[in-house]
Amino acid sequence: MGEGIRIGIVGYGNLGRGVERAIAQSPDMSLYGVFTRRDPAKVVCHDAGVRVIPLDDVLDHRGQVDVMILCGGSRDDLPVQGPQLAAGFTTVDSFDTHARIPEYFAAVDAAARASGQIALISIGWDPGLFSMNRLLGEAILPQGESYTFWGKGLSQGHSDALRHVAGVRAGVQYTIPSPEAIARVRAGELPQLSTREKHTRECYVVLDDGADSDAVREAIVTMPNYFADYDTTVHFISIEALQRDHAAMPHGGFVIRSGQTGDQTHQVVEFSLALDSNPEFTSSVLVAYARAAHRLRVKGESGARTVFDIAPGLLSPKDPADLRRELL
Amino acid sequence: MGEGIRIGIVGYGNLGRGVERAIAQSPDMSLYGVFTRRDPAKVVCHDAGVRVIPLDDVLDHRGQVDVMILCGGSRDDLPVQGPQLAAGFTTVDSFDTHARIPEYFAAVDAAARASGQIALISIGWDPGLFSMNRLLGEAILPQGESYTFWGKGLSQGHSDALRHVAGVRAGVQYTIPSPEAIARVRAGELPQLSTREKHTRECYVVLDDGADSDAVREAIVTMPNYFADYDTTVHFISIEALQRDHAAMPHGGFVIRSGQTGDQTHQVVEFSLALDSNPEFTSSVLVAYARAAHRLRVKGESGARTVFDIAPGLLSPKDPADLRRELL
Repeated sequence: MGEGIRIGIVGYGNLGRGVERAIAQSPDMSLYGVFTRRDPAKVVCHDAGVRVIPLDDVLDHRGQVDVMILCGGSRDDLPVQGPQLAAGFTTVDSFDTHARIPEYFAAVDAAARASGQIALISIGWDPGLFSMNRLLGEAILPQGESYTFWGKGLSQGHSDALRHVAGVRAGVQYTIPSPEAIARVRAGELPQLSTREKHTRECYVVLDDGADSDAVREAIVTMPNYFADYDTTVHFISIEALQRDHAAMPHGGFVIRSGQTGDQTHQVVEFSLALDSNPEFTSSVLVAYARAAHRLRVKGESGARTVFDIAPGLLSPKDPADLRRELL
Repeated sequence: MGEGIRIGIVGYGNLGRGVERAIAQSPDMSLYGVFTRRDPAKVVCHDAGVRVIPLDDVLDHRGQVDVMILCGGSRDDLPVQGPQLAAGFTTVDSFDTHARIPEYFAAVDAAARASGQIALISIGWDPGLFSMNRLLGEAILPQGESYTFWGKGLSQGHSDALRHVAGVRAGVQYTIPSPEAIARVRAGELPQLSTREKHTRECYVVLDDGADSDAVREAIVTMPNYFADYDTTVHFISIEALQRDHAAMPHGGFVIRSGQTGDQTHQVVEFSLALDSNPEFTSSVLVAYARAAHRLRVKGESGARTVFDIAPGLLSPKDPADLRRELL
């Protein structure tokens, strides 16, 4: 401990676990400890030697942690923790409620400016790397259209919605991008795609004992906001099959910019991810951006930042001359 | 003229032409003029109203041009023009001789620091956007391998080499990435790929009258550095077919990072381009980065920069709050 950039993890769910593993792959960083609201004695880290500290005591560790990576949820945890922790630490988080980003940015920015800290918000892949590619696409090809497709991947929000249907014991939902829609976009057709044309939804559901499968299917496929606007398929499986075949959290997607230069010359820029573990990948992005956050802090900058504000070179442990020689 | 960021174009070949068209798509920019070593009376721009100015007079236009986009070649033009023009202007160029980037950077950096200007070097897609994705891939997934595939695309260097073969009147060469190799990389196999396994080369050749096609084919496929290490196919066609079917300059390629997180979890990040015109796309990248160069200059920064040093937000004409609301 104490070597390189000292990272604190706030919250030890899937994301926190992933951050622990990603730090272990980063020789210029060390894990200071995990901060938790739970009883520290009951939090078992992947590396049993990791120090687990009550979140209530976090301010005692100021000056000993270079960057706090906030691994809580966007609905309840981050709106409180983001501004609070930015008042004492350089922070990185993955706040992902797109519609509330402006207000969250403002709250965290005010706290970070007041404390002289850097706070990197909404880091991950969407928001995050996908956002960066949406920006690059339209900045480089101003005449054109941008398309984002998600999946194939497990959607946490839609899986939660499934589980609230009467008669459902457990279940998961996969978002599947339409291969036909992607092919049309890649071909430079600039299609106007309806929600139904872009993605389909596939549900794997375990029924409660005695539940009526037809009624459950109907309740799912007609659910407003979540399923009604999509072609949704519902598969009924056993709890054993669910646990055996659907425990992973794959995800990914595509950001495609289809643009025209000169006299209607087609140009297509595409960024895609195929992730066997969504939380582990998001964690890896958080850790790379923690390096950038620390560097900005050392330079004396303060305030909130997003992926749009970070020069790519700040993410790499290599020095600029090596980057130019090896990767440019 | 004089509205927004005032751009000067140095050199009016394919790249300069593309920059002219890209500026016309950018409402926050205007074209100040084209600087040329040729007789200005003989340079006909796409927009006949564009001012064409002798390059020898370039210093008379200091203070009237915000950013000079250098559209000359990397072998002969830029090594001289890059440092020279950075002494008087904020510049952007597409220097693409990978092996000589460190010395070119040093020369341009010294000139730009001395003059208090910004000089963005090696902007385009490779070097450029591909380099950025190579950096992102290894920074986010430190455990893994990076792969760059080029094509399908017209290679200028290999087309030139073809034309120097005795008996060849004209010709073009396409670089074609191996679909099998890309599939193996995407599958997370981490293959070690030989040169021959990554790309094939396809040549369309017009013979001189009376030339021996077998001898020409043999001379091409055995040419060291250019073709000997690849599976090369040679097609003999008429001059009419060459002009009709092979006048476009398509290109593109793939940067793929295949990495592992946690316990050997596969994660694949991919960036790809499918370009119907390589020079028009490169020009569009140059113009977006000219916006960033101008902003850094206005902030008072100086010295040479590459894509690694530029925060994505600087490329967009939109203000940061709009970017966060619309694209994050």
